[in-house]
Amino acid sequence: MAGTTAPIIFILEPFGGSLRRHNASLPSLFWDDAAVTRGDGIFETLLVRRGRVCNEERHARRFEASARELGLPAPDLDYWRGATREALAAWVAERGEDAEGKCVWTYTHGRASTGYPSAWLTITEIGPEQREQREHGVRVLTLPRGFTVDEQAREWMATGAKTLNYAAAMSALRYARARGCDDVIYTHGAGEQARVLEGVTSTVIAVKKNGKMRTPTPGGTVLHGTTQAALFDAAQAAGWRCKAKDLTVADLLAAESVWLVSSVRLAARVTSLNGEKLPAPANEAEIRELIEKAVAGINPPRG
Amino acid sequence: MAGTTAPIIFILEPFGGSLRRHNASLPSLFWDDAAVTRGDGIFETLLVRRGRVCNEERHARRFEASARELGLPAPDLDYWRGATREALAAWVAERGEDAEGKCVWTYTHGRASTGYPSAWLTITEIGPEQREQREHGVRVLTLPRGFTVDEQAREWMATGAKTLNYAAAMSALRYARARGCDDVIYTHGAGEQARVLEGVTSTVIAVKKNGKMRTPTPGGTVLHGTTQAALFDAAQAAGWRCKAKDLTVADLLAAESVWLVSSVRLAARVTSLNGEKLPAPANEAEIRELIEKAVAGINPPRG
Repeated sequence: MAGTTAPIIFILEPFGGSLRRHNASLPSLFWDDAAVTRGDGIFETLLVRRGRVCNEERHARRFEASARELGLPAPDLDYWRGATREALAAWVAERGEDAEGKCVWTYTHGRASTGYPSAWLTITEIGPEQREQREHGVRVLTLPRGFTVDEQAREWMATGAKTLNYAAAMSALRYARARGCDDVIYTHGAGEQARVLEGVTSTVIAVKKNGKMRTPTPGGTVLHGTTQAALFDAAQAAGWRCKAKDLTVADLLAAESVWLVSSVRLAARVTSLNGEKLPAPANEAEIRELIEKAVAGINPPRG
Repeated sequence: MAGTTAPIIFILEPFGGSLRRHNASLPSLFWDDAAVTRGDGIFETLLVRRGRVCNEERHARRFEASARELGLPAPDLDYWRGATREALAAWVAERGEDAEGKCVWTYTHGRASTGYPSAWLTITEIGPEQREQREHGVRVLTLPRGFTVDEQAREWMATGAKTLNYAAAMSALRYARARGCDDVIYTHGAGEQARVLEGVTSTVIAVKKNGKMRTPTPGGTVLHGTTQAALFDAAQAAGWRCKAKDLTVADLLAAESVWLVSSVRLAARVTSLNGEKLPAPANEAEIRELIEKAVAGINPPRG
């Protein structure tokens, strides 16, 4: 039933224009949408706090870049921002100013029978599992990513786009959960000297002694992280030395703390890696506060 | 408008049970279906001829294997077959016995909010482009696949599943079309010594002199082809010598003819490869008839 606890869904016109709130009790997608038949679309996930979306400009820029890579018409970002404001107003009216939520923008090649792109956004509650992992951390299994991207394919392959193709990621998570873990870090190679890539839906951060933060170099199959970027900006301003550079599994085991950062779960501390316990660092609260402030506390000025 | 020209859509219960014809003018999928948000599902495409689906058992077996790889509950194949019969009866009643069609089975991890898998099947018309390509062939561009699957990841990665993750394939097709081509053959490596893998939605067949047919060895990122399997069975029975073995781009250029085979388009002859014309062979009609008979003429006995 569409009531005060229903997700908020707004359907956008692909080329800007009117906006329609969709009844969450009814289906909204046709069987021949490219999202359904081919996963041929892109998305961004944004955290909703105090009636605003967090880190919006970084998400908007990545959304624009993903659309370009997938050959979608350039999204009218002002229209998307306006639609987001309208959905946020509904969210606040129905849930209150303090309700935390998850806003997802989706944009696809649309129905085969019409040729028009499909576009919609949703605001939904944050699941109990994500809240729990934010607070208590995650047990992580490393898995070889499974594939290596060839340099030759860069010209045509949308390696930098945040597409809807997460079947392999979901397989990896099911595999990890069947082994008592909560999350996965992809690696290149196996063993302790394997190169760390990224979480299945997050960016890896290693916090070292002496005020250093590291993240694996993005590019190739490692997506540029909007949350990691916000964190590094804030951390540098607070005196940390932050750098993107290659990391091995051994580097993670030797770090003072390891975090998986993403838009909605924010920072989940890695409490065990391949069964090896990673104890809580003395500065856990400080790091958590840093990321909260970096991502959720401010909307950086438009770049 | 749902009328005699509307696609036929049947919604299945994930664990068997009732069957519901869905009005094609209305959407059928929710925004939180795993097919939509993650491409986390599988499909099979079958050719409809003379009121029957072709090559059904091979498709059913691959569907079952894909489900297993993606951690979906085993599909009740008798129920899927029954649903297909019902949809075929509607198709014949509305379009006539002679109407050729395309039947797609889709099975996904379903809505995040319910946890039940989603399952449906459609029968639709075959597009004019596919008919045209069947008759006049395709101009093909080879592209490096873009990634290599690591042996280490076989344990968890669903490399053999026919999933809904085709965003990279659609990017490859857009890239080829912008360059005056109709289709793509993936290779491993570049240049004439590159190893041939598969078409983006088809299997590659090279026909050589002296009654030999070759197809690249399936496995890894090369999906087992149901149409190629049917063709090879029929060709062997007709005295051809058929073998799966590694092929290079140079082997394709040296072949008497090259074909892309798939369930609905059946056999599209490659008329040019990377701009080099491949002339029609003397036995073009024979090969076309062979594949028509192999795939569309019979339903092989249940294995």
